[in-house]
Amino acid sequence: MKLPGQEDSEVYSAHENGSTGELDSGPGSGPSPDGSSDTEESKDPLLFIQLNELLGWPQALEWRETGRWVLFEEKLEMGGGRWSAPHVPTLALPSLQKLRSLLMEGLVLLDCPAQSLLELVEQVTRVESLSPELRGQLQSLLLQRPQHLIQTTSTRPCWRSAHPREASRGEEALLKEQRQNSLRQKLPPGAEAGAVLAGELGFLAQPLGAFVRLRDPVVLGPITEVPLPSRFFCLLLGPPMLGRSYHEMGRAMAVLLSDPQFQWSVRQASNLDALLAALDAFLEEVTVLPPGRWDPTARIPPPKCLPSQHKRLPLQMQEVKGSSARRYGSPAEDRHSHAPQAPSPELQRMGRLFGGLVQDVRRKALWYPSDFLDALHPQCFSAVLYIYLATITNAITFGGLLGEATDGAQGVLESFLGTAVAGAAFCLMAGQPLTILSSTGPVLVFERLLFSFSRDYSLDYLPFRLWVGIWVATFCLVLVATEASVLVRYFTRFTEEGFCALISLIFIYDAVGKMLSLTRAYPIQRPGSPAYGCFCQYPDPGGNESQWTRTKPKDRDDILSTDLGLVNASLLPPPECVRLGGRPRGPGCHTVPDIAFFSLLLFLTSFLFAMAFKHVKTSRFFPSVVRKVLSDFSSVLAILLGCGLDAFLGLATPKLTVPREFKPTLPGRDWLVSPFGTNPWWLSVAAALPALLLSILIFMDQQITAVILNRAEYRLRKGAGFHLDLFCVALLMLLTSVLGLPWYVSATVISLAHMDSLRRESRACALGEPPSFLGIREQRLTGLVVFILTGISIFLAPILKFIPMPVLYGIFLYMGVAAISSIQFTKRVQLLLMPAKHQPDLLLLRHVPLSRVHLFTAIQLACLGLLWIVKSTPAAIIFPIMLLGLVGVRKALEWVFSPQELLWLDELMPEKERSTPEKGLEPEYSFSGSDSEDSELMYQPKAPEINISVN
Amino acid sequence: MKLPGQEDSEVYSAHENGSTGELDSGPGSGPSPDGSSDTEESKDPLLFIQLNELLGWPQALEWRETGRWVLFEEKLEMGGGRWSAPHVPTLALPSLQKLRSLLMEGLVLLDCPAQSLLELVEQVTRVESLSPELRGQLQSLLLQRPQHLIQTTSTRPCWRSAHPREASRGEEALLKEQRQNSLRQKLPPGAEAGAVLAGELGFLAQPLGAFVRLRDPVVLGPITEVPLPSRFFCLLLGPPMLGRSYHEMGRAMAVLLSDPQFQWSVRQASNLDALLAALDAFLEEVTVLPPGRWDPTARIPPPKCLPSQHKRLPLQMQEVKGSSARRYGSPAEDRHSHAPQAPSPELQRMGRLFGGLVQDVRRKALWYPSDFLDALHPQCFSAVLYIYLATITNAITFGGLLGEATDGAQGVLESFLGTAVAGAAFCLMAGQPLTILSSTGPVLVFERLLFSFSRDYSLDYLPFRLWVGIWVATFCLVLVATEASVLVRYFTRFTEEGFCALISLIFIYDAVGKMLSLTRAYPIQRPGSPAYGCFCQYPDPGGNESQWTRTKPKDRDDILSTDLGLVNASLLPPPECVRLGGRPRGPGCHTVPDIAFFSLLLFLTSFLFAMAFKHVKTSRFFPSVVRKVLSDFSSVLAILLGCGLDAFLGLATPKLTVPREFKPTLPGRDWLVSPFGTNPWWLSVAAALPALLLSILIFMDQQITAVILNRAEYRLRKGAGFHLDLFCVALLMLLTSVLGLPWYVSATVISLAHMDSLRRESRACALGEPPSFLGIREQRLTGLVVFILTGISIFLAPILKFIPMPVLYGIFLYMGVAAISSIQFTKRVQLLLMPAKHQPDLLLLRHVPLSRVHLFTAIQLACLGLLWIVKSTPAAIIFPIMLLGLVGVRKALEWVFSPQELLWLDELMPEKERSTPEKGLEPEYSFSGSDSEDSELMYQPKAPEINISVN
Repeated sequence: MKLPGQEDSEVYSAHENGSTGELDSGPGSGPSPDGSSDTEESKDPLLFIQLNELLGWPQALEWRETGRWVLFEEKLEMGGGRWSAPHVPTLALPSLQKLRSLLMEGLVLLDCPAQSLLELVEQVTRVESLSPELRGQLQSLLLQRPQHLIQTTSTRPCWRSAHPREASRGEEALLKEQRQNSLRQKLPPGAEAGAVLAGELGFLAQPLGAFVRLRDPVVLGPITEVPLPSRFFCLLLGPPMLGRSYHEMGRAMAVLLSDPQFQWSVRQASNLDALLAALDAFLEEVTVLPPGRWDPTARIPPPKCLPSQHKRLPLQMQEVKGSSARRYGSPAEDRHSHAPQAPSPELQRMGRLFGGLVQDVRRKALWYPSDFLDALHPQCFSAVLYIYLATITNAITFGGLLGEATDGAQGVLESFLGTAVAGAAFCLMAGQPLTILSSTGPVLVFERLLFSFSRDYSLDYLPFRLWVGIWVATFCLVLVATEASVLVRYFTRFTEEGFCALISLIFIYDAVGKMLSLTRAYPIQRPGSPAYGCFCQYPDPGGNESQWTRTKPKDRDDILSTDLGLVNASLLPPPECVRLGGRPRGPGCHTVPDIAFFSLLLFLTSFLFAMAFKHVKTSRFFPSVVRKVLSDFSSVLAILLGCGLDAFLGLATPKLTVPREFKPTLPGRDWLVSPFGTNPWWLSVAAALPALLLSILIFMDQQITAVILNRAEYRLRKGAGFHLDLFCVALLMLLTSVLGLPWYVSATVISLAHMDSLRRESRACALGEPPSFLGIREQRLTGLVVFILTGISIFLAPILKFIPMPVLYGIFLYMGVAAISSIQFTKRVQLLLMPAKHQPDLLLLRHVPLSRVHLFTAIQLACLGLLWIVKSTPAAIIFPIMLLGLVGVRKALEWVFSPQELLWLDELMPEKERSTPEKGLEPEYSFSGSDSEDSELMYQPKAPEINISVN
Repeated sequence: MKLPGQEDSEVYSAHENGSTGELDSGPGSGPSPDGSSDTEESKDPLLFIQLNELLGWPQALEWRETGRWVLFEEKLEMGGGRWSAPHVPTLALPSLQKLRSLLMEGLVLLDCPAQSLLELVEQVTRVESLSPELRGQLQSLLLQRPQHLIQTTSTRPCWRSAHPREASRGEEALLKEQRQNSLRQKLPPGAEAGAVLAGELGFLAQPLGAFVRLRDPVVLGPITEVPLPSRFFCLLLGPPMLGRSYHEMGRAMAVLLSDPQFQWSVRQASNLDALLAALDAFLEEVTVLPPGRWDPTARIPPPKCLPSQHKRLPLQMQEVKGSSARRYGSPAEDRHSHAPQAPSPELQRMGRLFGGLVQDVRRKALWYPSDFLDALHPQCFSAVLYIYLATITNAITFGGLLGEATDGAQGVLESFLGTAVAGAAFCLMAGQPLTILSSTGPVLVFERLLFSFSRDYSLDYLPFRLWVGIWVATFCLVLVATEASVLVRYFTRFTEEGFCALISLIFIYDAVGKMLSLTRAYPIQRPGSPAYGCFCQYPDPGGNESQWTRTKPKDRDDILSTDLGLVNASLLPPPECVRLGGRPRGPGCHTVPDIAFFSLLLFLTSFLFAMAFKHVKTSRFFPSVVRKVLSDFSSVLAILLGCGLDAFLGLATPKLTVPREFKPTLPGRDWLVSPFGTNPWWLSVAAALPALLLSILIFMDQQITAVILNRAEYRLRKGAGFHLDLFCVALLMLLTSVLGLPWYVSATVISLAHMDSLRRESRACALGEPPSFLGIREQRLTGLVVFILTGISIFLAPILKFIPMPVLYGIFLYMGVAAISSIQFTKRVQLLLMPAKHQPDLLLLRHVPLSRVHLFTAIQLACLGLLWIVKSTPAAIIFPIMLLGLVGVRKALEWVFSPQELLWLDELMPEKERSTPEKGLEPEYSFSGSDSEDSELMYQPKAPEINISVN
């Protein structure tokens, strides 16, 4: 039985559009509209094309493989004895024209029944112009084995020359080598080969061209370096000419065969005319670079994104493909075909109480078994390790921050426990189990405000907080019941970016602030500062501490550290002094030198190394496995490095305080929070007011993250569950309030990292194709295991206590910087600093005047500034409302910016679409002046907006 | 009178090859062989081409400028209201073919005598197919003013619409705007315009094509955005068609006109056939990109290096250009045309005593007046500032190092004085006045060895050193007399790289070593370390220091820093204690806390910021002027930053020790070194032995730098003076030995920075052309002024004493890292760490198997390791001989590597060329398999090998 969620086997994607595009500023957030047809296109088997060239005329004729193609071209570098990097093939126009006339006059065999190389060679050489003697010579030449540059998996390239005389005994060895060929392992099953043989042959009086399509693909012995059945065979020989004409013609033929549309046409072609028509159609579509402005020998690296081949196909073919695409289209793909403004099915209002929730539960229940079965993949193991480390880093740091913010009402232990309980429960029940719950910046800010409020009014904090939690849960349940989550459609990129920037700034500000507070705790000793000197005083035998008793006087300058010349005083360091029963006295006893600067060094080290490790991924050094590990575990490695440095020098840096036993951090409190404590009864009602604010905050925080995680670009197949997620958050809110644990909502950054670690990608072809993104391994198991491990980590205290705090601050700085640099807003802020001519060629700059872009950025900056100010003033408690105000500001922007501009700078809000369908979306210039070239780029899939990953 | 050295006015280089190419691995160290013909090519005036498109059919017809070309294409981005970045134009093949047929059927007027737009329009519309009525309509349409996107210098773009009704009064305003156009200021005088008008016109029954070459270029009113006289005019109109055919045809026409060869042909063309032939010749040469593998809407940024247009020219044209190139060729250009192996005229052996020196003096004497006149350029001012700062940084740091190495026999004062005297004298007399003399790493190493030797044998150092100097000067004069400098031809890249890597490693090692020695001088205080505690003891009234006298006892814990409860002891900090007549006692008194880590922070800060400032040059941020300043003054800024940080915190970091008065650092010595001192007389003879070693070292150090500075790529016009330079060094050696100042030779890094700051570049065209390198401002004044300023700086002590040593160490680390990363050797070492498929597409990797490249690198690494070991052992004194051994190793490599491989990895040694002319240089594969595409790349100018700049 195939379960609904059973994942498709990963298809070879050579023909698919690389949809892993980089950050793009286009508004078309859906994937390529022809994505489905591209998948379909891969029904044509992949073609491996090889060019064998006849070299060494007249002395020592030999065939040598000098080029190969799958998607891109690889040239043989004779001198270097290696294959070039894959590159976009470039041709000279005359070689295509010469090829055309050679084919026109030559032999074209379509559906040739030859079953072996011998038969094929006989058929091909059956040309009138050849005398029998020449034919024999030619046949033996064609049967001669070519030299291949075999790059075996052991990377040592070697030339394989196979002369006819060793043909029989070399046969076995050759086949073995062909199989060992590393290229072979990268080609998908079912791939076919095309062989192009070209060269100059002195004894030919006139050119000899032959193009053969074999009826059944046949392995043509040693002609191709990989033992694939050949479908096409092309022979281009002729008398020596100026230049490398036949080489270039052979390349032209190979490039033609590697073109998807030419290949499709030539597979259907029934006669020479169809073949020539296909060539002409190819010529119609080529891009021409002028000779004076482009060096034809330059190699163009494979583009990140290939143009869609869909519209190049003949009409009847487009129809076939279109229908099959509809037939094969998965639910997720259906969803993608909606315009970006159309609400996804999860966000359609049901119109009855808890309608959305019921709908969510129904939809997700279907997938529930597969949510566990889909986790059976080794990738999930590394995802668990990675997210576990990120989660405990988060738990440790937020635990520390919360503990400080609430005077120990919550601490690291509560943080671990709460994360484990809430996270695991959420993973089991939620609509989007890829979400990772965590304490988040805004909630932390709110909790800090709530605590100072209750301290100012001498309230009993935890009972007060319990009531706030109860009210928040109630409000959230109301929101669930009224299907309020459908409002997330109003959260456009503007809102998301404002929110994300605020969180990131809080991270950065806190990290730097905590670091600087360390330099206050461990003051730097300036020359002449009074905090100098410390000695150790013992009670003298008489019990009078202040009586100095002299020992034998010493006049040496280098008094021993312990000997002050007194019986009852010494210069022992404070810890030893205390151990010996003395009292350290003097202002210098409380200062520990060197700690401030060393902490700063640790902070910078861990931050810079985390950044550097992250960027190793795009460096050229080391094999890709090593790079991936270094990059994926960048913050873990940075933490380890920091701890190692700290341990090596052995200084008394402030370390992480971890609980030694399993009990609440606040002394004397039970796990269950008493409902009233010392608070008056009416406070339980009054708590509804802050709870209202917190509910807005929780709703925003939770749902913005949910919107980001459920973006169409991630190609999630199992759908979202906005209502169900909020329901779970509400229940967990209640639970954590009762137990006095921190509150949890979805954490954007860490959840994205989770998804990133579960990406399914097509196997990349070795020949320059970027691997394409297939989806995410959607399941509940990885999250569950992560939180179980987090729970167990409560007992990790003996290890965790070695982590210096500055290292954690450094990691937090890194997380904030990484998050803020990933949003488009940051790119636009950078534009402010760039002179126009150095600006990158962003699509949005092609369509929106720079001044308008700057205006939009300035408005965002102003909003952010306002949020920050509100957050820092006594009015901070209302900042959730301000956050909600972002949606209003965005709405107001519709009076300032045209729909066009908003389409490029942001997304459109849903009403627009209902009231004035499609209006206002027309290009401003409806005449031909509208840049036709955008049509393609507009609909390229938009890459995930926030694509950073923590740890 | 035009002096021989009068520099040519800087020519506009739109037609020149960009020869500022990046680091290239090709062995062809000569510049492009057709460089001279390219200069010649600029005789054809530069053509600015503009495409005006007819938009708005049928409602509101208007012309709008939608594209412009000089070298590359700029598209109008309608939505963005700005010009795109310049890019390589891409065309569709059909548009070129359609254009061809339109031209074939259309009107072609060559040498049209029209004197105004009106006349031109009348001539162009004189077509049979047009009815008189249509003709009138068309004429008025053509006279209508187009809309231009004028980007004035104030950067605010605005649309300039000019309707006919306001033609008369708008005329003035328009002309003003045309003149204000920022593009106008970038086009050279003499530039001509070409206007292409294209569009769809509904009332036309059939297409209308016209191509006009005006006999005399005429300013066609408002048609072009810049008021240039138009030479070409092209009209492409027709009934509406599918797609944007006329737009594309117009672009094709514009691209054709922007092609240098098409332009040349069409200027000569006498009839339609010649025009079509030029178009066909263009088509023959185009590069074709297959549609399936390239997105035609992608924009290709302008390449760094354009292909030579020389071989595309018709034969008769090539001859004309060739001869004129010979006529105009300057001496320097003549030199460039030599094969890389041919000795340059400066290195030809004269065959008589001091023949080379005489020759050098003769050659340089000719240029002597111009050596001062050429300095009259503002660029020289910034060069002086820049090199002055680099020089004093060098003088300070080497002064510090030398002072330490020689126990004060030379110090910072000697360093400043010596640098000033020797440098200024060299600049006045030398053959290559761009050279900056400095203490160098190898000489420093040698001096350190010499000092330890003389200390070990209790010799009087300065007199001993004087004799060494006398002998070295003698040996060097012998080398000058025998014209030994011609041997520098054997210093191939292998030798240069070995030497440069050694110097850089010494820099890096010393910088890190000095930094670490600071942490020993200021130990870190670990918890429990005995170095804790310090108190201040006063002599008691009785004079007995050890008698403790009690004050009123205090029981508080927070004893004041000064009050220990004793009369004759307190916890005052040591400086205050001493001031009050006490004695600081205790092990803690000698340690200054926090200094070690703060020094490390300063070290890292100055290093990292210097690196970062250096890289600002290639960032997109800030206007290019700001970037250039930040980058050019990177190390000065880093020093200032470090000093600022240090001053801000006010810690007692170790500072630079500078002399307070003008006298030798070593107390009690005269400025003149006594010839014998306490040494035995025979030591003056024995000094010849170390002098021999030092002579080898000086010769190597001086001449390798001279070879690097006089490379052909720098296009020096005044020639080198290897013999004269060595002669000067010898004389200065004598002078500095007598005065007990440090020894000086040419410093590679700082001299290259000097040359870099004096680069003459063509004004860059705004349209994507990289500025091309024209040469160096060769003169003596900048160097002279730098050294005079250095001399004056001796009195800078009050400022210099604020510079913390760790900052200087950081800068030295930066200099070492910058120098070592600039050599090809480093790139090859990096290749060792890169998996083959991620390696960059270096030319040498295309031609030499990777294993051979690695072998060569490994041999270099081994040599370097050996040099380093020798330098570090007691046998260090013989390391100059080892350095000379590099030349031998290189010679031996000829048995290991083929001449081919050495040609790519290194250069060829001179004998080869004499004994077996041209043999061994043939490509390994003489058949057609040899990659023809290299022919172009092989002879591209090689960029300077070491192109870093200090400060």
